[in-house]
Amino acid sequence: MVSEIPLRVSAVFTRNKVKAAPVIISKKNSKNIIRALIVNSGNANACNGKYGITDAKKVMEAVSTETGAAAGNIFICSTGVIGERLNVPLIERAVPELVKTADKSGFHDFAKSIKTTDTFTKTASSDVTLNGVKYRIIGTAKGSGMIMPNMATMLAFIFSDIPLKKETADEMFKDCVEKSFNSITVDGDTSTNDTAAFFYPDASGRPEKGADADYKKIKNALFKVCLELAEMIVKDGEGATKFIKITVMNAHTESGAKKTALTVANSPLFKTMLTGEDLNWGRIMAAVGRSSVPLEPEKIDIYINDKLIVQNSSVYKGLSKSEEKTVLSPKEIDFKIDLKCGKKKWTVLTCNLTKEYIDINASYRS
Amino acid sequence: MVSEIPLRVSAVFTRNKVKAAPVIISKKNSKNIIRALIVNSGNANACNGKYGITDAKKVMEAVSTETGAAAGNIFICSTGVIGERLNVPLIERAVPELVKTADKSGFHDFAKSIKTTDTFTKTASSDVTLNGVKYRIIGTAKGSGMIMPNMATMLAFIFSDIPLKKETADEMFKDCVEKSFNSITVDGDTSTNDTAAFFYPDASGRPEKGADADYKKIKNALFKVCLELAEMIVKDGEGATKFIKITVMNAHTESGAKKTALTVANSPLFKTMLTGEDLNWGRIMAAVGRSSVPLEPEKIDIYINDKLIVQNSSVYKGLSKSEEKTVLSPKEIDFKIDLKCGKKKWTVLTCNLTKEYIDINASYRS
Repeated sequence: MVSEIPLRVSAVFTRNKVKAAPVIISKKNSKNIIRALIVNSGNANACNGKYGITDAKKVMEAVSTETGAAAGNIFICSTGVIGERLNVPLIERAVPELVKTADKSGFHDFAKSIKTTDTFTKTASSDVTLNGVKYRIIGTAKGSGMIMPNMATMLAFIFSDIPLKKETADEMFKDCVEKSFNSITVDGDTSTNDTAAFFYPDASGRPEKGADADYKKIKNALFKVCLELAEMIVKDGEGATKFIKITVMNAHTESGAKKTALTVANSPLFKTMLTGEDLNWGRIMAAVGRSSVPLEPEKIDIYINDKLIVQNSSVYKGLSKSEEKTVLSPKEIDFKIDLKCGKKKWTVLTCNLTKEYIDINASYRS
Repeated sequence: MVSEIPLRVSAVFTRNKVKAAPVIISKKNSKNIIRALIVNSGNANACNGKYGITDAKKVMEAVSTETGAAAGNIFICSTGVIGERLNVPLIERAVPELVKTADKSGFHDFAKSIKTTDTFTKTASSDVTLNGVKYRIIGTAKGSGMIMPNMATMLAFIFSDIPLKKETADEMFKDCVEKSFNSITVDGDTSTNDTAAFFYPDASGRPEKGADADYKKIKNALFKVCLELAEMIVKDGEGATKFIKITVMNAHTESGAKKTALTVANSPLFKTMLTGEDLNWGRIMAAVGRSSVPLEPEKIDIYINDKLIVQNSSVYKGLSKSEEKTVLSPKEIDFKIDLKCGKKKWTVLTCNLTKEYIDINASYRS
């Protein structure tokens, strides 16, 4: 991707301490103006020692030569196998043609090219009208699990023509990521390459955080794109057959609600229960209890697709045998866990754990 | 189990906030002298609201009547399905016969009776000679996973004829549990009922912690029994075909080493890699990196069965293609992860993740 005008980027990177070389470089460059973005799939360029950085820099040099953008104005990402050297000559040979043919119609090709084990191309968009002018936000993501075997990575790239101040956009994007890409889990693993980046024309004096109507409009549109992409990643979860929403409500804090929701979402016993469609609600109670947030263990209610199942931590007396048998049948299931001890809530998206996950991941490399 | 002499108990209970009724009762009673121990399998007596405690108390009344032990001197445990009422009349009817036939030869029957989905009975023993007198430590455990579907629980009971001071034994047992039962994981789930208890004759003025030779001898024997039982639980892990030891060495702290080892052990990507016997060492690096302990991400070495695989966070140059193919073939595999940034270490035991785990847990109740 090449930009005709100077762009700013707001980016969120993996919290993994083992970071791929392009993550280290792009984190640094995200303070600068951005003119070009280059992404490769198939190789994560992670755990390659000193060669990681030198290989990434060679790729950036090729981009510099063709676009005129300085190395500090290039954003670079990699996704794929960990611990193998990047095939730099292959990329160097491809760059001139890539830059020459780059045009506005190329977004879908870009979205397609960043996939690894994804089974479909993931794009989303949203329009915003500000003072009568129509703007767009478009985005693409790759990932079919937070995880990706040693095909490490969730990558998301979002672009807009709305001029924004970097400080404003940074905060806006961080919030949006927190409730979208950072609220999904397939198996709890976090890669060395995870990156979400939002690119936009640089502007000063544009909407500030606050009661400002523009700020809210833009943030809502940005969040819509982030959430749609995040949902697609979960729906494409390796081996997954069910799409699961878990909301922990009436918790003391948002972070506590999120922690509890993620503990349930990552519990193998919860995930296999969904596959078997066999209501063992004790597994949810056990996961809630070990999530180590303050709660009153005798007061928990659980709703599944809005049906009351557990009341005050015991089975709901009104639950019929037939409801018990069918409540886990739908492909999309909404769990509400009411802690009844505070006023905060958080929603996490996940999928079930099937034998296909084992197949995909037991034999990924060979 | 009925004791002719007053016993003391040192016990460690689940840290899950959702605790089964017998856990709440036994935790309280563990401060007192113990005369009888009653355990049922098949029902966890967890998440039954106020009925949990009243049902457990009825069982204890039956034991009181037959043994003469006061309710405060009984240790009670349950293991099995969560959220269903205990069949109290069934247990009440059985207690008189149980007490009448209790004798020294009954230990194996006890060990057999506490099983749920365990595929074999787990016992271990160790002898200690103190001042020419021979003592024994014997123990049994149940669990085939930390987890047990909604058949919640890991239970361990250890008995000795060595007279001990409670304070001394409490500390000794806590240390032993930390490096045995608390260092194993099948799938990261913790039950509402987990309990490990060590029973011994009450004594004052017996070996104190310190340089005392007796203290060390007793602790070594106790640890041997705990570790053997813990290893059996992992080997009986649901669907497991491999027994895995993960040692994180040269970490800043013991707790950091343990946290990192557990993060690797619980990673579904690591566990499925073992099943596929396909060396994706990047998955280990990614798990180490997300374990959020202080480390130097460029300095990590990884050994598998004492073969160097990763050196300074990159693939070891001397690794041959044939070694790469066979290094994960053995049934027992020893991983050493050298962080090279401190002097502390910790070992965790785990197993692999197979399709049989999904089968067992997807259809447990039905």
